[in-house]
Amino acid sequence: MPKVRLALAQTNPVVGDIDANSNLAFEAVVAAAKAGADLVLFGEMAITGYPIEDLAARESFVRQAETAVQDLALKLQAAGHGEIAVVIGHPALATQRETHNWAIAQNCASVLLAGKTVGKYAKHHLPNYSVFDEYRIFVPGNDLLTFEFKELKFATLICEDIWQKGGPVAQLQNSNTDVVLVLNGSPFEIDKDDKRFELVRDLANSSSAAVAYVNLVGGQDDLVLDGDSLLVDSSGKLIGRAAQFESDLVLFDVESKSQIDAVTTARVKKTDDLAQIWNALVLGLRDYVEKNNFKSVILGLSGGIDSAVCAAIAADAIGADRVFGVSMPSKYSSDHSRSDADDSAERIGLNFRTEPIADFVSVFENQLGLDGIAAENLQARMRGVILMGLSNAEGHLTLTTGNKTELAVGYSTIYGDSVGGFAPIKDVEKTLVWKLAKWRNELAEASGQTSPIPENSISKPPSAELRPDQTDQDSLPEYELLDELLDAYVERRLGRDEILKLGFEAAVVDRIISLVDRAEWKRRQGAIGPKITGMAFGRDRRLPITNHSHSK
Amino acid sequence: MPKVRLALAQTNPVVGDIDANSNLAFEAVVAAAKAGADLVLFGEMAITGYPIEDLAARESFVRQAETAVQDLALKLQAAGHGEIAVVIGHPALATQRETHNWAIAQNCASVLLAGKTVGKYAKHHLPNYSVFDEYRIFVPGNDLLTFEFKELKFATLICEDIWQKGGPVAQLQNSNTDVVLVLNGSPFEIDKDDKRFELVRDLANSSSAAVAYVNLVGGQDDLVLDGDSLLVDSSGKLIGRAAQFESDLVLFDVESKSQIDAVTTARVKKTDDLAQIWNALVLGLRDYVEKNNFKSVILGLSGGIDSAVCAAIAADAIGADRVFGVSMPSKYSSDHSRSDADDSAERIGLNFRTEPIADFVSVFENQLGLDGIAAENLQARMRGVILMGLSNAEGHLTLTTGNKTELAVGYSTIYGDSVGGFAPIKDVEKTLVWKLAKWRNELAEASGQTSPIPENSISKPPSAELRPDQTDQDSLPEYELLDELLDAYVERRLGRDEILKLGFEAAVVDRIISLVDRAEWKRRQGAIGPKITGMAFGRDRRLPITNHSHSK
Repeated sequence: MPKVRLALAQTNPVVGDIDANSNLAFEAVVAAAKAGADLVLFGEMAITGYPIEDLAARESFVRQAETAVQDLALKLQAAGHGEIAVVIGHPALATQRETHNWAIAQNCASVLLAGKTVGKYAKHHLPNYSVFDEYRIFVPGNDLLTFEFKELKFATLICEDIWQKGGPVAQLQNSNTDVVLVLNGSPFEIDKDDKRFELVRDLANSSSAAVAYVNLVGGQDDLVLDGDSLLVDSSGKLIGRAAQFESDLVLFDVESKSQIDAVTTARVKKTDDLAQIWNALVLGLRDYVEKNNFKSVILGLSGGIDSAVCAAIAADAIGADRVFGVSMPSKYSSDHSRSDADDSAERIGLNFRTEPIADFVSVFENQLGLDGIAAENLQARMRGVILMGLSNAEGHLTLTTGNKTELAVGYSTIYGDSVGGFAPIKDVEKTLVWKLAKWRNELAEASGQTSPIPENSISKPPSAELRPDQTDQDSLPEYELLDELLDAYVERRLGRDEILKLGFEAAVVDRIISLVDRAEWKRRQGAIGPKITGMAFGRDRRLPITNHSHSK
Repeated sequence: MPKVRLALAQTNPVVGDIDANSNLAFEAVVAAAKAGADLVLFGEMAITGYPIEDLAARESFVRQAETAVQDLALKLQAAGHGEIAVVIGHPALATQRETHNWAIAQNCASVLLAGKTVGKYAKHHLPNYSVFDEYRIFVPGNDLLTFEFKELKFATLICEDIWQKGGPVAQLQNSNTDVVLVLNGSPFEIDKDDKRFELVRDLANSSSAAVAYVNLVGGQDDLVLDGDSLLVDSSGKLIGRAAQFESDLVLFDVESKSQIDAVTTARVKKTDDLAQIWNALVLGLRDYVEKNNFKSVILGLSGGIDSAVCAAIAADAIGADRVFGVSMPSKYSSDHSRSDADDSAERIGLNFRTEPIADFVSVFENQLGLDGIAAENLQARMRGVILMGLSNAEGHLTLTTGNKTELAVGYSTIYGDSVGGFAPIKDVEKTLVWKLAKWRNELAEASGQTSPIPENSISKPPSAELRPDQTDQDSLPEYELLDELLDAYVERRLGRDEILKLGFEAAVVDRIISLVDRAEWKRRQGAIGPKITGMAFGRDRRLPITNHSHSK
């Protein structure tokens, strides 16, 4: 018999729904108990969901979370599971508040046993970069927590704590800990699984302990927590991973820090990048829909690649019967646009209708006398009004189908094609949209299913079709070049001179930098969508609208 | 002859425009030199504007700012002003960066003399609450800076440093400093002038030194830096204030820390609250327009109080000849709406036209068969399309006229009346809109001018007029009550039970909390507008969209 059977409980809590999340935790412990677990480890803030943002500054909310943790301990004890140690994340009021009374809470992990809280750890390192604002809402902790349980010594850490060399990671070095329990709320990013594994392995090495890493799973607004919990022994060897993008419960028998076996058949191999990205986009959309109680989604189908990919993501997320597509051709729409939109709808099997916009456009043009850009935008806005009208009348969530490259340079009409509550591919650059489309079609073909994205939508030159014979490349550089340039300016934050050194033409650089800066006001008013890169538009990249730094 | 003639240079820099801001600083020193100044003190980040947000994470930008400071010192020396000491705020690269390479800079004040930087101070306390994210982008400083100049001892502090008791404020206590120089980028909030004065007086008392407090002035996106720089002697006595909401240069003769005279006729009295709020809204709009190079603004005039007040603010900000009003009556618009809109336009003297929406609405209703809320929203969206069409065709900035109460409960149509790049009264609750309207009319009347806001727009019951005989109070509580309730939930962050204890009806509380939470997705896509309260919607209040904390 092993000393400790350890369960990693990878749950999908809903932000703010303390009662439901506590029930979820209770049920996970019951399931783990049935599987013989002695200790159950949950993710960061599993009681409240993550991130809770300024809910952490609402005192009554934090008190409820604390009460829920106590109640969970009592309920487990009453149900005969008091002998199981449970480690779970939640906010708790700090004894000392920040001067302005903003950060009043701490980001904590409590150890529950026999109906009581027997230990509490407060996160030491508070991430305050990228999408994270934890220094705003939390007071940092100072003390290490270790506890003995069934002849093994455990320690707890929370997420950012293991990304920093100082503090608790340093303190653990000579602590004789057997297993470090790490609670995480770590959002998906391309290649982050590798980074996390490295950090966990480094921690195993530096602390000479096994490391159990539990991440939450689920979409929360613009973040996708991808699960992918894992366990390594004290030599840094991977013993197993939980599922990625799904709730999971995996168990390990811990005889000693260097002798650990997977009880369940735990995954060891990582999934390939395109599959991970697609699954992140699917989960992000699904959870936004389900957690906000939408019955269905609606989107415009133009026949182009972006809307075709969004429709396929939506069908994978919630089923084609809950997806409503609308073709809204204008007088500039080509025959292939119409037929590609039809084809996309048919391949996926979604609900489809056509609403031509000619009558709408002409009544506006006649009364207001618009032409040029104003008339082009008008067409996009007519489509926006149609989608929002149908959304209001029928209760659909409207999806906006713009990609990251478009959003970067402002190649969209505000209040037109940008309307909607969720933007499934807002963090996917155009060249990656194509790759994902091909990958998804190949996946379908490999299993003998209809590929969901029309081949023609992938292969034809992209066009907004707002005037005759228009293509995107009339006004933008080739997408391969554009995405590289945007990577330098947006993701790597290089200045003009540094970008010129990479070999781009000055005129192109100046034009694109100016477009990106000038589109900031539109991006601020854009829908949220799942972050998949290291620098998503939104709270990941915070720049002024009024900003004269363009030219330097 | 006094020991030091001290100039407070209250400038209005443009974020990112390092060249222009450096010139502004140069000219201010030249003007101060003509007035006999020995030392010129600028505001926080006067070289780059404030706040620069993630521009601080762009290394090339920070380097430019550092170079600009060196160049300024050389240019002043070359112009024969090398003997003047200049203290100015700017970012500088930190020697040690934050782990994730996000915070790479410090928020600094440099002392320039004889063509060189002779001292540099890095801000110690980094505000990371409310609208501030400085811990995200700056590395905190540790060292106090004091310097001797013309027989007096000076020290420098930056903004948040004086809001915290520990750190440099404590270090100053026994430093024998004569004058503490405080560089600020402090945004306007109702009553903040009193708070600042108290802090400055407390600092004078604790450090036994005179305190010179220079604040920037100018609108920057959603913030209004209001100037109102001031100087107190070591007894805490106010010697004088600079202008509020305008650039200014005020001079003081400092014989000793307790013997200081105003050279210019410096203001001592504070302005009353409604005047301050109005002026903040006017400056916020003016600077957004001017700094973003808009020639004109356009807005819908409904005959209601909100649009009438916005039109008056716009005219005060940039002149009535640059304001374009559009009346867009529907079949539900009352006669008084049309005549009040006409009256508003005429009183202000703005450019005015009428675009009835009946034809637009009917073509949509006919093709899509919309009714109920969908049809109500459609009317608002037709107006949005008209305003944006005219904006695109004629180059106006579109103003959206929603007030804070409306935004709180989601009483607006997204992509309809919410369209626009700037929202002049988004942080003004409805009851305050009425007070401001009356105040502005009285101001006009007191000086024999036409009152800009129609009396009828102020006195009639508010209505969206999206269906027959509708008034706001059909679906919302009385505004007096609603604003009180919102104050409890939004501004004071109370939970349901705490609000019930204040004596509100449970049904009303539940309904309003639910409306506020459910409108979060719309607010996220709303235009920016000037913050005037302690809790503005936008980056001041960060809550999840997916949020099930409603009921508690």
